[in-house]
Amino acid sequence: MTLLAFDIGGANLKAADGNGYVEHRAFPLWKQPEQLAGALANMIGLAPPAEQIVITMTGELADCYQTKAEGVKSIVGSIREAAAHREVLVYLTDGRVVEPPIAIEQPLLAAASNWHALAALAARYLSAPRGLLIDLGTTTCDIIPTANSKPATQGRTDPERLASGELVYSGVERTPLFAVVEAFQLNGRPTPLAPEFFATTADAYLLLDQLPEDLQNCDTADGRPRTKSYAHARVARSVCADTSLMSYGEALAAAELVRDAQVKSIVKAVKQVTGHSGQQPAQVVLSGSGEFLLEQVIEALPWDLETVSLSNMLGPEVSRCATAYALALLACVND
Amino acid sequence: MTLLAFDIGGANLKAADGNGYVEHRAFPLWKQPEQLAGALANMIGLAPPAEQIVITMTGELADCYQTKAEGVKSIVGSIREAAAHREVLVYLTDGRVVEPPIAIEQPLLAAASNWHALAALAARYLSAPRGLLIDLGTTTCDIIPTANSKPATQGRTDPERLASGELVYSGVERTPLFAVVEAFQLNGRPTPLAPEFFATTADAYLLLDQLPEDLQNCDTADGRPRTKSYAHARVARSVCADTSLMSYGEALAAAELVRDAQVKSIVKAVKQVTGHSGQQPAQVVLSGSGEFLLEQVIEALPWDLETVSLSNMLGPEVSRCATAYALALLACVND
Repeated sequence: MTLLAFDIGGANLKAADGNGYVEHRAFPLWKQPEQLAGALANMIGLAPPAEQIVITMTGELADCYQTKAEGVKSIVGSIREAAAHREVLVYLTDGRVVEPPIAIEQPLLAAASNWHALAALAARYLSAPRGLLIDLGTTTCDIIPTANSKPATQGRTDPERLASGELVYSGVERTPLFAVVEAFQLNGRPTPLAPEFFATTADAYLLLDQLPEDLQNCDTADGRPRTKSYAHARVARSVCADTSLMSYGEALAAAELVRDAQVKSIVKAVKQVTGHSGQQPAQVVLSGSGEFLLEQVIEALPWDLETVSLSNMLGPEVSRCATAYALALLACVND
Repeated sequence: MTLLAFDIGGANLKAADGNGYVEHRAFPLWKQPEQLAGALANMIGLAPPAEQIVITMTGELADCYQTKAEGVKSIVGSIREAAAHREVLVYLTDGRVVEPPIAIEQPLLAAASNWHALAALAARYLSAPRGLLIDLGTTTCDIIPTANSKPATQGRTDPERLASGELVYSGVERTPLFAVVEAFQLNGRPTPLAPEFFATTADAYLLLDQLPEDLQNCDTADGRPRTKSYAHARVARSVCADTSLMSYGEALAAAELVRDAQVKSIVKAVKQVTGHSGQQPAQVVLSGSGEFLLEQVIEALPWDLETVSLSNMLGPEVSRCATAYALALLACVND
């Protein structure tokens, strides 16, 4: 049976058919939940024909929904509308793929399920008794231990995973800089950041040549393009300065601070996660659009680790939609 | 000469005539800079007739403006348009009140000038050789030392004031909770906050009965009303939970953590600011919509301080527009 898998996030929609086709688009769900069905229908229309639609999600956390239950119900409703006559299935964090009414009845199993799908795929590459998946995306980082090629996490819901270190809410594009570091050096003095949505990690990695400049991409804190020049202005604004008060060199040094702090926080979480099992992992799968940063994380860990890069295995395009791709493969097997 | 003074902020507009009339309204400048002139004209129309308009500002920092110079120029342009035939004057952080072209030529003196106007007013109540003004508002806290009844600050621009501790970018309504505390207790486990704009300090102080419930006021992180019930949901969302996963009692304990952390950060900054002069202050003026929190700050300081409450002196309505009121008085004297 032909199928199309979706990962419906709070800021991005990703689709994959498990057969080479992937597609993603920015979609600010919290601003326009009523447009979700239309956006999904559009993506279905552009994809290879599919008889079955299977979804995983994190978008239920968006604050357009008062509770997760409401979010799950609304998102499932949107995909059913978009799917029209096609069969719809929903992935749960216990590994089951179920029909919509069952998902709606168990919203805490349907909520925040995309990490589980990805972990189930990654575990296939992890033959050692103890393995690890580290997926660093635009917004969050998932750190998933595996045991005997299966996910072996402490937490299941998002808050449990935050507490266990398995979810680090920090990514390489959307995270505000003031969530990562407390102060930048300005004129040689530590200057605290203002907690306004002035600059994000995308600006740091633009300045550090880890993200490409793109005049067409205005998915930034101030809506101006993703260029180094505008990133400089945004980083300056984060300490209530502007480019006349903060030099390009100071902004670059600030970006390095951000990078180092993010690496440090992920390393800390990896140690917390692996500490639970008491056994250190032998293999690790790296994935997500932030893979470039994970090499430094691995270097900073005190173990010898065999690493597998999902973007090397799948190619960068598929890797960017890895959660949807993973779900497509899992759903095929479950059929 | 009759006048009307404005404090043009990034999120609020405040007006006062120095003669008892005050008015304020929420105005998200960063979203709609092109509507500023209209909003100001509307406020001028509702106020007692004035021949002169005098302004102070912080709105130039809003990210609709690429630089402070651009922001100052645009804001001055808006007030000139709104003022029509009336004379317009601009307050500078060196205490001068100047005509628009002079302000536009010296944007760093016109930028972020409202604290200086307020400090000049507060200094009148501070007869001791060393005094202090602590103004805690919705978004920021200004800590201004005075010497012989005049402002005696280290910093003049916003970044300088952040570095010196004279500007603490933390307030009692708009500050995201994740900028104040790292983790809340959930099921007895420390659970890190997600760096999303899910909940603000207004939610903490709603839960703690320091801000009134108001079904009409939707100036919140999720646009739902300012009630304890919605505040509970927002606080829960800040750790990726919802009200089914985080109890009301846990949200209340989280609010107490936020309050204690804010008090601590202001106390730390007060010590930093007074440390510069090497002399401890004998008197302190407290002001702003967050005055309720400042009593705890004073208690936590290791000195005996004579305190003056600006809201007691001026009444709560005038106190809420204290920057505009201060400017109106200063401008009258300067005439």
